[in-house]
Amino acid sequence: MEQSIRTMRLALFINPTGHHQASWRHPRADADAGVSFEHYKRLALAAERAKLDAVFLADNQNVRRGAPEAVGRVAQFVANFEPLTLIAALSAVTERIGFISTASASYNYPYQVARKFASLDFISGGRVGWNIVTSGPPEAPNFGRDEHYGDDVRYIRAAEFVEVCLGLWDSWEDDAFPRDKATGIFSDLSKMHVLAHEGEYFRVRGPLNIPRSPQGRPLLVQAGASPAGMDFAARFAEMVFVTPQTIDEARATYAKLKEGAARHGRDPDHLKVMPGLSAIVGHTRRDAEDTFGLLQSLLHPDVTLAALSFRIQGDVTRYPLDEPLPESAGAGANPGFFAQWMDVARRENLTLRELALRASGSMSGLAVRGSADDIADMMEEWFVSGAADGFNLQPAYLPGGFDDYVELVLPELRRRGLVRTEYSGRTLREHFGLPRPDWRPRPRRVESGSGTAAK
Amino acid sequence: MEQSIRTMRLALFINPTGHHQASWRHPRADADAGVSFEHYKRLALAAERAKLDAVFLADNQNVRRGAPEAVGRVAQFVANFEPLTLIAALSAVTERIGFISTASASYNYPYQVARKFASLDFISGGRVGWNIVTSGPPEAPNFGRDEHYGDDVRYIRAAEFVEVCLGLWDSWEDDAFPRDKATGIFSDLSKMHVLAHEGEYFRVRGPLNIPRSPQGRPLLVQAGASPAGMDFAARFAEMVFVTPQTIDEARATYAKLKEGAARHGRDPDHLKVMPGLSAIVGHTRRDAEDTFGLLQSLLHPDVTLAALSFRIQGDVTRYPLDEPLPESAGAGANPGFFAQWMDVARRENLTLRELALRASGSMSGLAVRGSADDIADMMEEWFVSGAADGFNLQPAYLPGGFDDYVELVLPELRRRGLVRTEYSGRTLREHFGLPRPDWRPRPRRVESGSGTAAK
Repeated sequence: MEQSIRTMRLALFINPTGHHQASWRHPRADADAGVSFEHYKRLALAAERAKLDAVFLADNQNVRRGAPEAVGRVAQFVANFEPLTLIAALSAVTERIGFISTASASYNYPYQVARKFASLDFISGGRVGWNIVTSGPPEAPNFGRDEHYGDDVRYIRAAEFVEVCLGLWDSWEDDAFPRDKATGIFSDLSKMHVLAHEGEYFRVRGPLNIPRSPQGRPLLVQAGASPAGMDFAARFAEMVFVTPQTIDEARATYAKLKEGAARHGRDPDHLKVMPGLSAIVGHTRRDAEDTFGLLQSLLHPDVTLAALSFRIQGDVTRYPLDEPLPESAGAGANPGFFAQWMDVARRENLTLRELALRASGSMSGLAVRGSADDIADMMEEWFVSGAADGFNLQPAYLPGGFDDYVELVLPELRRRGLVRTEYSGRTLREHFGLPRPDWRPRPRRVESGSGTAAK
Repeated sequence: MEQSIRTMRLALFINPTGHHQASWRHPRADADAGVSFEHYKRLALAAERAKLDAVFLADNQNVRRGAPEAVGRVAQFVANFEPLTLIAALSAVTERIGFISTASASYNYPYQVARKFASLDFISGGRVGWNIVTSGPPEAPNFGRDEHYGDDVRYIRAAEFVEVCLGLWDSWEDDAFPRDKATGIFSDLSKMHVLAHEGEYFRVRGPLNIPRSPQGRPLLVQAGASPAGMDFAARFAEMVFVTPQTIDEARATYAKLKEGAARHGRDPDHLKVMPGLSAIVGHTRRDAEDTFGLLQSLLHPDVTLAALSFRIQGDVTRYPLDEPLPESAGAGANPGFFAQWMDVARRENLTLRELALRASGSMSGLAVRGSADDIADMMEEWFVSGAADGFNLQPAYLPGGFDDYVELVLPELRRRGLVRTEYSGRTLREHFGLPRPDWRPRPRRVESGSGTAAK
């Protein structure tokens, strides 16, 4: 019975003009989509009509680095909205779909992240999620640091950051606000809890100045591919964005994350594994190939090297184009992402030029193309064989690429009973089949009769 | 001629249930307004229908401190939305009215403040303003600090913070994004400018990852009452929120701010002085008195002392109620606000009990009451005699208190030609009659041919 009612979780991951590196040059693309609220609103409404679970937004707090000949030719992470302000605005013009926004646990204050997501959860009526990232080296100098936090520290620090947020979200019990006009009692301070966190990396007193939010806390999302990142995901994440390039890799990642969740004492079903899927769908395979060919032809060679550099979070621009990428190129790159792309290169015996072109087909997820049946077959196979609980849809170009997906693939998935036909819940947690977490006590409470300790 | 077309600037300053300390207990108040998006949306739409310039939102990044018997009885700064997420959402459901949000220059990263306001400016189509505050001591422990920045440092540090933001908002020239599909050139990096700020308090590299926004930068707003705060306002602010308690005080403040702007080489007309006005308006004076009497009767005695403490940003709870407040109570308080309230006490020979009750009539602005003619007369007198360029309207209770204002006072002001009858501009700057600032070069530019210096 469980199997028959299990449906795919689906999120629309919006890169402004699409996930293909040349998407902004597509004839149907809106090249200034990165700062066009109307563009995002149209997509969010389309995703809601399609009954998707959520819209997903990435983030970088810096202008993309690299050679100007490449940077000047790309649209992503150069001229975009800040995502928390964006999802606040999008939530005001939608009713049911969720919004997952990235926010850095390296370059932020925990009090502000906790507060903004609680606020967003109220504004949206319980429809937000937080994609927790630890940021990359280019953000550091925008936040007063010469160097980014090292691999050894980043996730330990981020875990403390998340623990602080979890504590702040439980600053008030659910019934802490009687708001009783007759007695004049607005808040019941015996149900207010001062966190008084003093950790290795953060000191945060609290309490948060907003009640416990509709979902208790936002859906927690994570995307780390390194061992430390995957363990972090297994510990905290309720949705994990993964980027396997084959079904075998997807199954291995899926199993590892579910096992990790169990090892952390969690219900593995409360961690949803959702690969990125950058599908180009056509009425026929030939249509899809033509669209892909058009997009690839719009890629400037400098852009492909920058794209691969971006995907491994390193630099491949100084290696010979027609030889395989050497192992030494991994120095300074994200170890998890680098290993993944080296696997692809070795398996298919690709030169750097070929690997870079491959990497440009999508910003992160698996790039596939085909007819609606092809894409639905692939999604079904991954879904039923322990490779995915659903997908983060990363259309190659927008809005057209998502329109194609809605018109062609979704009806086929519905016919197969793999996706919902109507929302049954109101909150993002309900869409994901996750319980609202109970408030839980933490060691330190407000001192009796003193309001807050620092009075 | 100038005089005849000059109209009052008007902003609706929303405290969730109103500016009277007992407003949440009013029979027509929505007691959970602080986290009700529908409540704010209704007010923003009403303010837009009334052709106001802006909605104004205060902020504190902490739960209000004080004795639990008082804190538990107040609604403000305990259970509220975070204002940047809130104005993003409100801007999505309105078309013309501006939104001014408070954000701390003490407990924030300049890169994030600059980026969020630029993003909001795009989302809203050029309708946002930033009320720059330096925060109070209770925020410090939520941001890893034992002590708040001292009076000597706060505004110097805030000025550097604002300069960093001004630089980041000019990261890209207005025409830096050709987005030319034919040539594949998305951004013109010769028009990208790396700030590379290395100051006494901040190191921020830049550039900002968002184009120059519709208004160039948000309207800059300030509310400092101390000499340092007023000089800061004269240097940067385009609107100043002031809280004079008499017309003479208002005229003196007005003159000082305009002179200060001129001293900083600015056009004094580009700094709009807008006192807070917490007017209770009735069909008759008696109506207004009845409403005020009802609200005052709902004030618990502990609340009035907390209210006065809040207004002077100090603590008056340990002084005898039926004697005048001693000068020594100013230790630890905001010097500007304390002096202002001591003046009131001396002038009218008030005991602490009486002064505290007076202070509870409004959260900050002048509390007045009367018929529509009374209120319009007072506003006109202030407006035409060099005491105000307009007002921050702080209804005593919401939404009813603003409805009364719209129905009774605004028609009278319109009849007198003192307020606009239709929007003529699209942006908040246009509503305020302020020019869009030109992009201006700063010393450091991107190195030729290297994209960003740290490549």
